[in-house]
Amino acid sequence: MSTTLCLHPRWLIPVEPAGLVLENHALVMQGERIVAILPSSEARTRYANAEHHTLSEHALLPGLINLHAHSAMSLLRGLADDLALMDWLNNHIWPAEGKHVSDQFVFDGSVHAMAEMIRGGTTTVNDMYFHHEAVARAGISAGMRTVVGCSVLEFPTGYGINADDYIKKALHAREQFVGEPLVSFTLAPHAPYTVADETFRKIITLAEQLEIGIHCHIHETRDEIDASLKQYGVRPLERLRNLGLLGPNLVAAHVVHANDAEIALLARHGVHIAHNPASNLKLASGFARVAALQAAGVNVGIGTDGAASNNKLDLLADLRLAALLAKAESGNPQAVPAAKALEMATLAGARALGMDAHIGSLRAGKLADIIAVDLSGLDSQPLYDPISQLVYASSREQVSHVWINGRAVLADRELCTLNAGQIQARAHYWRERIATH
Amino acid sequence: MSTTLCLHPRWLIPVEPAGLVLENHALVMQGERIVAILPSSEARTRYANAEHHTLSEHALLPGLINLHAHSAMSLLRGLADDLALMDWLNNHIWPAEGKHVSDQFVFDGSVHAMAEMIRGGTTTVNDMYFHHEAVARAGISAGMRTVVGCSVLEFPTGYGINADDYIKKALHAREQFVGEPLVSFTLAPHAPYTVADETFRKIITLAEQLEIGIHCHIHETRDEIDASLKQYGVRPLERLRNLGLLGPNLVAAHVVHANDAEIALLARHGVHIAHNPASNLKLASGFARVAALQAAGVNVGIGTDGAASNNKLDLLADLRLAALLAKAESGNPQAVPAAKALEMATLAGARALGMDAHIGSLRAGKLADIIAVDLSGLDSQPLYDPISQLVYASSREQVSHVWINGRAVLADRELCTLNAGQIQARAHYWRERIATH
Repeated sequence: MSTTLCLHPRWLIPVEPAGLVLENHALVMQGERIVAILPSSEARTRYANAEHHTLSEHALLPGLINLHAHSAMSLLRGLADDLALMDWLNNHIWPAEGKHVSDQFVFDGSVHAMAEMIRGGTTTVNDMYFHHEAVARAGISAGMRTVVGCSVLEFPTGYGINADDYIKKALHAREQFVGEPLVSFTLAPHAPYTVADETFRKIITLAEQLEIGIHCHIHETRDEIDASLKQYGVRPLERLRNLGLLGPNLVAAHVVHANDAEIALLARHGVHIAHNPASNLKLASGFARVAALQAAGVNVGIGTDGAASNNKLDLLADLRLAALLAKAESGNPQAVPAAKALEMATLAGARALGMDAHIGSLRAGKLADIIAVDLSGLDSQPLYDPISQLVYASSREQVSHVWINGRAVLADRELCTLNAGQIQARAHYWRERIATH
Repeated sequence: MSTTLCLHPRWLIPVEPAGLVLENHALVMQGERIVAILPSSEARTRYANAEHHTLSEHALLPGLINLHAHSAMSLLRGLADDLALMDWLNNHIWPAEGKHVSDQFVFDGSVHAMAEMIRGGTTTVNDMYFHHEAVARAGISAGMRTVVGCSVLEFPTGYGINADDYIKKALHAREQFVGEPLVSFTLAPHAPYTVADETFRKIITLAEQLEIGIHCHIHETRDEIDASLKQYGVRPLERLRNLGLLGPNLVAAHVVHANDAEIALLARHGVHIAHNPASNLKLASGFARVAALQAAGVNVGIGTDGAASNNKLDLLADLRLAALLAKAESGNPQAVPAAKALEMATLAGARALGMDAHIGSLRAGKLADIIAVDLSGLDSQPLYDPISQLVYASSREQVSHVWINGRAVLADRELCTLNAGQIQARAHYWRERIATH
């Protein structure tokens, strides 16, 4: 029988219902699940034989869900900044990827990213990259909930030669990890401008048959929209609607540019958005209309994007940024209040991945993806409202403990599943190779 | 004779010239000044008797300059968020200030803010508040370079009854601290909508006679501009120009809204801008046109604003935000590159305060306001470019050492001049009073 662990935090923030803060409450976990949330005193009697852990200055909340990442790109962090998008891609990122991306690169880079994410309170990552087995193995090593997005595009890379080849590799990779509790797969047509109609149709059919999600960059830049108008005579969202891609199994990354009709379309089809506030600023893509999307009923989660365009994998910083940006973009200081920002980075992400029955909030019966944030420091004082403090005033360095699927992966700021020294050594190795070639 | 301290960092980033990164170099300080920057090996022979301090994984750079703050408002952090501006001011901030602001509140709040700022690498604060002696005493206690901005407005507060009274108190406070090396004063007419023409004229005359700076909120919101058009028939900047306020001794806080003609006007008069990226988002003020201001030759520094509207006093985060926002606002990913963002938070701030001969960059002869940032952590790896890593990937928790005026105020993350426990106790005290009344 598995150990019963009983956490007694200063504040328990279940996210569901939104804005609730419980005091003098305990969370009980057994195996991979949360089995109860109840008054602390009751927990001490009902679970007298459990291991009790007091977190006297901490807020306990669901783990953060990074809804759009290219984890392995952590190895390219800061290689090329402050450049125009096509210069950045053509002359820096793509050549570096072409030369260096391999199973080993992707494993090392993904492990590095997952170490950074875990230390920052992220428990699930919705990834999109190549060398899928390496991403999945990294997730298993880290003990991190990993959705492996298998990129599909028309042109060749070091990993595949054409769309059919990418799809074949995706399906093969998926089969290797059937039954792995932490790993699942999505098909990830890269973007409307890199994927042909026929390929989108195949992906839609496969995703339906396999009952898996689709993850795609959509309406990230104005150029993408202009190019589609030229090539297809319609904006990308219109084309994707005609192809039948829009639906509740689609996570659309970015959607920076959407007019009112498109927002209504996204809402009608139940498309989920992965909003990437930092990356959208850094690449000068623009200001996503988050307040309008939410007002229309669209589910919006938050992603970091890759470390080459952020350059942090810091979801706590990015949920704050999402809350701040939404206010200025909409001209309404009440847009995306603190509790909503927290929900975006947790429950909304879970919903987008079709996992909200299992993760995204603290509730008896859900899987134990849980983080503790230490609010005792000077920078968190005085404390009037723990949710405000978490969202507007906290840093990822305050994340003290992380559990994923009931297993401790960070304890008192120390990684439990990964070896920081080894990760550093691999980062140095790749730095030498990449910087000098 | 004072000790000679010789710092051997991994990277030395003087900020002047922009973008320069020195390796294998040392910085020598004696008393309150930097006396040399030279190759490390040479330093070990020429300063053989000095105290040598190796910072093997650190970047050494000038201390950050917070160009717009209301330090004491740290005690109101998170008291009221996500509200419309006038609701926030009228029903939360002003009543709380009216009830609680006193010499003791301002001293405690300013010390708290300075502890937070020092731990985040800020060495100079350009403040604006009330109870000026308390702000100055806090600065002296903290060992922080403090520009005490003395608020002037027409209506009464707990501190003064009318503009003349505020001015009298400002001049009196200033006289108490003549000769204090860390403390200087500015006159701070609060904003065009709270200060009458006659008062602006008096302030201009006094600032000229006393040779001190002026610090004023200008064009923060559209409402402010609309109200001025109604009351004065012109936009605030036009009115202030007519009054003679615009000049190189003026730090204009915010300037979120400026048309092309106003940007040209600001450039022509040499007005300095304190850009407050986080606060401008949180209060939904808008997106300042930083790239256009800089292209016109306007000097733009960075401020945090008060903790009630940010809610962090984290200049490292805000210089990153300034770099990111400028790209999206201008649609140009090359706007405000990393080295420029670093300059904004250091040398540009010094220039705005008329202190660039003394602080803002690492140069022999300048005062030793210096910080070290530890870049050894996982989150800073791999490291291709230390300036990129500092600006786009670092957190204030990586600031390991801070010297102000040659004195260590933070060493290995520990405050040297302030007592963290005492500050916590005062924060708890104020929290109890403010939350329950």
